[in-house]
Amino acid sequence: MTDMPDLRPLAGVRIVEVSSFVASPLCGLTLSQLGAEVIRVDPIGGAGDKNRWPVTESGESIYWTGLNRGKRSVTCDMRSPEGQRLVQRLVTAPGGGILVTNAGGRVWLSHAALSAVRSDVITLRLTGTPDGGAAVDYTVNAASGFPMITGPESHAGPVNHALPAWDVAAGLYAALAIVSAVRRRERTGRGAEIDLPLSDVALAVSGYLGYLTEVQVNGAGRAAIGNAVYGTYGHDFVTADAARYMVVALTPRHMRDLVRVTGCTAAVEALETALGVDFSTDADRYRHRGLLNALFASWFAEHTAAEVEVALAGCSVLFERYRSFEELVGGGQLETNPLFSVLHQPRIGTYLAAGLPAAFDGGHLSAGAAPLLGADGAAVLRDLLGASEDDIDQLIDGGHLGVAQG
Amino acid sequence: MTDMPDLRPLAGVRIVEVSSFVASPLCGLTLSQLGAEVIRVDPIGGAGDKNRWPVTESGESIYWTGLNRGKRSVTCDMRSPEGQRLVQRLVTAPGGGILVTNAGGRVWLSHAALSAVRSDVITLRLTGTPDGGAAVDYTVNAASGFPMITGPESHAGPVNHALPAWDVAAGLYAALAIVSAVRRRERTGRGAEIDLPLSDVALAVSGYLGYLTEVQVNGAGRAAIGNAVYGTYGHDFVTADAARYMVVALTPRHMRDLVRVTGCTAAVEALETALGVDFSTDADRYRHRGLLNALFASWFAEHTAAEVEVALAGCSVLFERYRSFEELVGGGQLETNPLFSVLHQPRIGTYLAAGLPAAFDGGHLSAGAAPLLGADGAAVLRDLLGASEDDIDQLIDGGHLGVAQG
Repeated sequence: MTDMPDLRPLAGVRIVEVSSFVASPLCGLTLSQLGAEVIRVDPIGGAGDKNRWPVTESGESIYWTGLNRGKRSVTCDMRSPEGQRLVQRLVTAPGGGILVTNAGGRVWLSHAALSAVRSDVITLRLTGTPDGGAAVDYTVNAASGFPMITGPESHAGPVNHALPAWDVAAGLYAALAIVSAVRRRERTGRGAEIDLPLSDVALAVSGYLGYLTEVQVNGAGRAAIGNAVYGTYGHDFVTADAARYMVVALTPRHMRDLVRVTGCTAAVEALETALGVDFSTDADRYRHRGLLNALFASWFAEHTAAEVEVALAGCSVLFERYRSFEELVGGGQLETNPLFSVLHQPRIGTYLAAGLPAAFDGGHLSAGAAPLLGADGAAVLRDLLGASEDDIDQLIDGGHLGVAQG
Repeated sequence: MTDMPDLRPLAGVRIVEVSSFVASPLCGLTLSQLGAEVIRVDPIGGAGDKNRWPVTESGESIYWTGLNRGKRSVTCDMRSPEGQRLVQRLVTAPGGGILVTNAGGRVWLSHAALSAVRSDVITLRLTGTPDGGAAVDYTVNAASGFPMITGPESHAGPVNHALPAWDVAAGLYAALAIVSAVRRRERTGRGAEIDLPLSDVALAVSGYLGYLTEVQVNGAGRAAIGNAVYGTYGHDFVTADAARYMVVALTPRHMRDLVRVTGCTAAVEALETALGVDFSTDADRYRHRGLLNALFASWFAEHTAAEVEVALAGCSVLFERYRSFEELVGGGQLETNPLFSVLHQPRIGTYLAAGLPAAFDGGHLSAGAAPLLGADGAAVLRDLLGASEDDIDQLIDGGHLGVAQG
């Protein structure tokens, strides 16, 4: 036996997660992919997300298993002092000392309560709002400004995004904050109390990207522009055989190529002269996008998807065919992409599951299957707390510790 | 003088960023907020994102400054061997050894080239696709499946998200991967070669959230459902005074409260009996959402926004008013939220700018203003490489190193 160091970036890190829904479980999933041991603690019977859609025909939650891969599952009665004490001991056990949670308002699970037991504990509390209030992606998004500029120009009302983008960003910020706090603790011995409100994630990202700044500096924001690309050129086009393509020209070279490929050189030059504009500039491409859309649309309408792909693939233009999830999965790309590997997920089936999109040293870090709810309670108590079989039986008999639920 | 340890999580970490547009600069911004020294290297005259919209009235890019806060700026001629050697030396200088880039196809900037100079170098390369091809948020999103399920049910075509959600997720994955690799290097001495394709970010997240899995397991995905919340209950309602609210009932308690507050208890109970359904279950709320929408809509139409807010604030229902960016900024919440602080940004103006949404130990880590393009070239060469004034003058005179551009 040689002593190969464990090269997973988070080897030796253990996290207890008291969480549900998207952001907080995504944080744990991500840390698990990076090599941390992640223990998800739920109420006996499961949290509010246990049966969340999508589900299989037999009602098993694809959603729950997807976000809880690679974790160990402990269930306990968090309303009883015994159950609460158990969770505190799991969080503060040697080698661990990290809590991620989106469960609000629990004094016994607060940073103050845990740091009284272990002074270098790292806690991350994901809340809806900075004052600890409840909010979800759908409500945070409504207040973010984005639904007002999303959707067809002809549509008057707000349009929600389908991807829970704020939850995803919050889950990744949470994982980043944990790893950063682990690095600090390893250097300085200090723990950390981290607060992450979902609404602040939306506000911060909107700020960095200029959406809030332009209103403050210019006095106004932007209008809904459908599928156009703000401040440069992009549009969606329909081909002769009814395929749809998103086409983007971010640079002068992209634009030159798009004009040439679509046979519009003479028309575009004539327009530039007549209007006194220069389509090699972002501003002119954007301002006159309606004209350009109309010019290029004819070419797309006269060519099939196959012809469009050949023509555009031969130049610098950025383009992509719109696809449904069924077309994406049916197209065979998951099978050939090393990001995906076959996962045998009990209760769900066998499918191609994604690893971490950031590949380290040529390989995709990936987590195993999701646990059965409550399946690891006894083993975790033995491993972390050195609990005896008698201790464990007593906790189960007292209704404090749950067992595996089929 | 006492020796206070630097408590910023990434104190002592230095990153060179050769990057442009959103994802890669967002990675650097985030690392800068966490306390790292981040040096952005651009071609002399700036990269393709230098003038990206939104811009001020005088044409200064709000976008560029927003994503490059807290960084130092070096410009050099990366087409000349001298300029390339300079960037290599900056990346591999003692104390640093980290590169983040979205510039593809440069052998001199490859992991192999840099690790030949410094064996423990960490590189992160953000590409469009796994084979190194170009792609942007707009094209990756078109292929992701999401535009097909976004937007009003009455609208046939794909609807792009306005938030560049994949770019944001990629920037955060990149920052997480860097910090994880730093932690590994500090423990094992090993560098890391990290590849992060934007298209894999979209595929991975879609996989975790079940969008790809449900197609594989159930044989079909989901349809566009407008502003509804998949698999449970959510809808947008218009009030008597034409305000719009997103309203979500994720749990049986939320639903009971929504039914009670809107005065629909009798009608909902009658419907449950007549249809043989139970609206305390997610599945029945979701399947019969059209009926529920119609019932609740009357109540919203008969009440003003003020009345709606009072009624809903008194119960557990999750709700939020749709706001434009102008309403968000004008509403005064930035002024009272400690996430924001006043930033004097040269060339842009004074505005409220967001720090890191994850607050550490009660405070928001924040980065300073964005640099003037090329302003730190001489200082960075002195600090990192011990370059003399003669060395620096020679590089500038030779056209290899840029100077500050107004």
